[in-house]
Amino acid sequence: MRLRIAVDAMGGDHAPASIVEGAIAAARAWGDTVLLVGLEPRVRAEVDRVGARGAQIEIVHADEVVGMDEPAVSSLRRKKRSSIRVAARLVADGQADAFVSAGNTGAVMANLKVALGLLDGVDRPALAAVLPNRQGVSVWLDVGANVDTRPSHLVQFAIMGFLYSRGVIGVAQPRVGVLSIGEEEGKGNEATREVARRLRACGPGINFIGNVEGRDLFSGRADVIVCDGFIGNVTLKAIEAVSETTGLFLREEIERRWLARAGALLMRGAFRSFRRRVHYEEYGGVPLLGLRGAAIIGHGRSSPRAIQNAVRVAGEFVRQKVNDRIRDEMARLPAGVVDGSDATEAEAAL
Amino acid sequence: MRLRIAVDAMGGDHAPASIVEGAIAAARAWGDTVLLVGLEPRVRAEVDRVGARGAQIEIVHADEVVGMDEPAVSSLRRKKRSSIRVAARLVADGQADAFVSAGNTGAVMANLKVALGLLDGVDRPALAAVLPNRQGVSVWLDVGANVDTRPSHLVQFAIMGFLYSRGVIGVAQPRVGVLSIGEEEGKGNEATREVARRLRACGPGINFIGNVEGRDLFSGRADVIVCDGFIGNVTLKAIEAVSETTGLFLREEIERRWLARAGALLMRGAFRSFRRRVHYEEYGGVPLLGLRGAAIIGHGRSSPRAIQNAVRVAGEFVRQKVNDRIRDEMARLPAGVVDGSDATEAEAAL
Repeated sequence: MRLRIAVDAMGGDHAPASIVEGAIAAARAWGDTVLLVGLEPRVRAEVDRVGARGAQIEIVHADEVVGMDEPAVSSLRRKKRSSIRVAARLVADGQADAFVSAGNTGAVMANLKVALGLLDGVDRPALAAVLPNRQGVSVWLDVGANVDTRPSHLVQFAIMGFLYSRGVIGVAQPRVGVLSIGEEEGKGNEATREVARRLRACGPGINFIGNVEGRDLFSGRADVIVCDGFIGNVTLKAIEAVSETTGLFLREEIERRWLARAGALLMRGAFRSFRRRVHYEEYGGVPLLGLRGAAIIGHGRSSPRAIQNAVRVAGEFVRQKVNDRIRDEMARLPAGVVDGSDATEAEAAL
Repeated sequence: MRLRIAVDAMGGDHAPASIVEGAIAAARAWGDTVLLVGLEPRVRAEVDRVGARGAQIEIVHADEVVGMDEPAVSSLRRKKRSSIRVAARLVADGQADAFVSAGNTGAVMANLKVALGLLDGVDRPALAAVLPNRQGVSVWLDVGANVDTRPSHLVQFAIMGFLYSRGVIGVAQPRVGVLSIGEEEGKGNEATREVARRLRACGPGINFIGNVEGRDLFSGRADVIVCDGFIGNVTLKAIEAVSETTGLFLREEIERRWLARAGALLMRGAFRSFRRRVHYEEYGGVPLLGLRGAAIIGHGRSSPRAIQNAVRVAGEFVRQKVNDRIRDEMARLPAGVVDGSDATEAEAAL
């Protein structure tokens, strides 16, 4: 089945050039139709520059562009014809099967929530990062779609992550862990202890293995790691920074020594292969799970290769019917596990 | 002034050998007296092996040892004559000026709280990591002494971190930030927004610069970074793991290529210098702030060099009168900033 994938051609630090180039490569490589959404003359110029032979491409005009640093709320209110919104509407209206953008993450999430709405049984969407570990890759969510989540939300994240890992990553029985301090059952804070209690109540279907620690983001001990979006976002940014700082410090030490500079030249192949293994662009962006529609959010710095992989991941999301499975599983859960019984008193009074 | 520093000779993966070696080197290098606390025959054998000429060393017998994986609570109840407890009691009784251990972190924290108690004005102790950044080092707390902290506790952490940075790290006017998502004033979760509000109310003395992000743990934008111990612990472990995994992946790529292996040999000097710059052992362990006494906790894997530096840091903690300054500053703060006005209803009812 040929899918139709809407790509926000104007989103990303290197848009529209890198986006169009990656989208055309994706259409060619994966055989789906890519709808390039953005300022028509600029997108067409890029398509002409790259050449679209052998690729099914359509251009959909959108006459507004959301800046990478624009506040999400203002983009939502003032730019109703942005490329982000138009691409999201294509999915909502059934004219496209999936959405891809490397634009302003806050604006993309806000527009997707408004345009697509949430799946039945899901109260909050979750941003799921895909991380390389010693054995394969893990799915880690939420890395920043929400702050101030309740235990019932984290249970929903666990189920969505489990089904995404099985459907898109291809793990047969993904092991699900809660990110906490210490592996023992009683360890953690109030919220994680409650999440663990509820996940155990879900039964064997979810394959819950208990608490995991920060180090397990890379150990491969769990295939799905669940946490609050505040912690996920802080930790993700710290991980990105430690990698960059490591590279920077190492380069400084190499620059000081001619012998080391020669050594670095000999190591180029190893560095390149290492980079391919750990670099986000091979993982094709992160899904925003829980929406009525498939949506993949790329890194702002997305290269053509990253966009090409994001379109591939979007296609797998649709083909594996991840959303149907999430909806079915939410309906099947025992009472009290994901319902609002943990709403605070103030919320319950509303 | 010659200080007396109590070192838990039995704590750490390489105890007592590495601990005794590092402690003797410290006594020789910094001129303080080191009290080696542990099983007398084993400690004495190590002292004889290393040789203590030119070092002021005393051995204090303690006939129990807490294992590295023993639960903190059981060590507290069942091993009242452990090297950890005896060393902590030496500080409590005024027979030593400071405490150093690379033993079981949970047991060390629990024993220190019981033996020393908290400073006036401090409700919770905080574990403060010292991290290298692009410009120098930052102090980051709490990295795991507490879970489920309230905003008033984080304000106390900010003040303790500020005074530690000034006294021990030597930053004249340390910039204090709250770890959050997004730098803008309104960003964050309920807790961080309340902490920021209170820190602004503290006035210019504390040099509060607002929110910082995960990436700022390494950017040098703040000298002191404050967070909840749950987030701090998860993030610290993730950072350690990403560094180890990076090294592992890179070694695997190098092993596959003979050219790269040759390159790695040429780069040895650069790698070594890089390691010195980022390695924990140069920073000498992390202080547990807020106690009636100076206490430095070393990494379980502490080498002799790490212990030597931990003893140095313990001495600076005492000489710079960090605890007197914390107590004075807590007394000076405006009402409502660090008092219990944010206690939950359940707590207030007790």
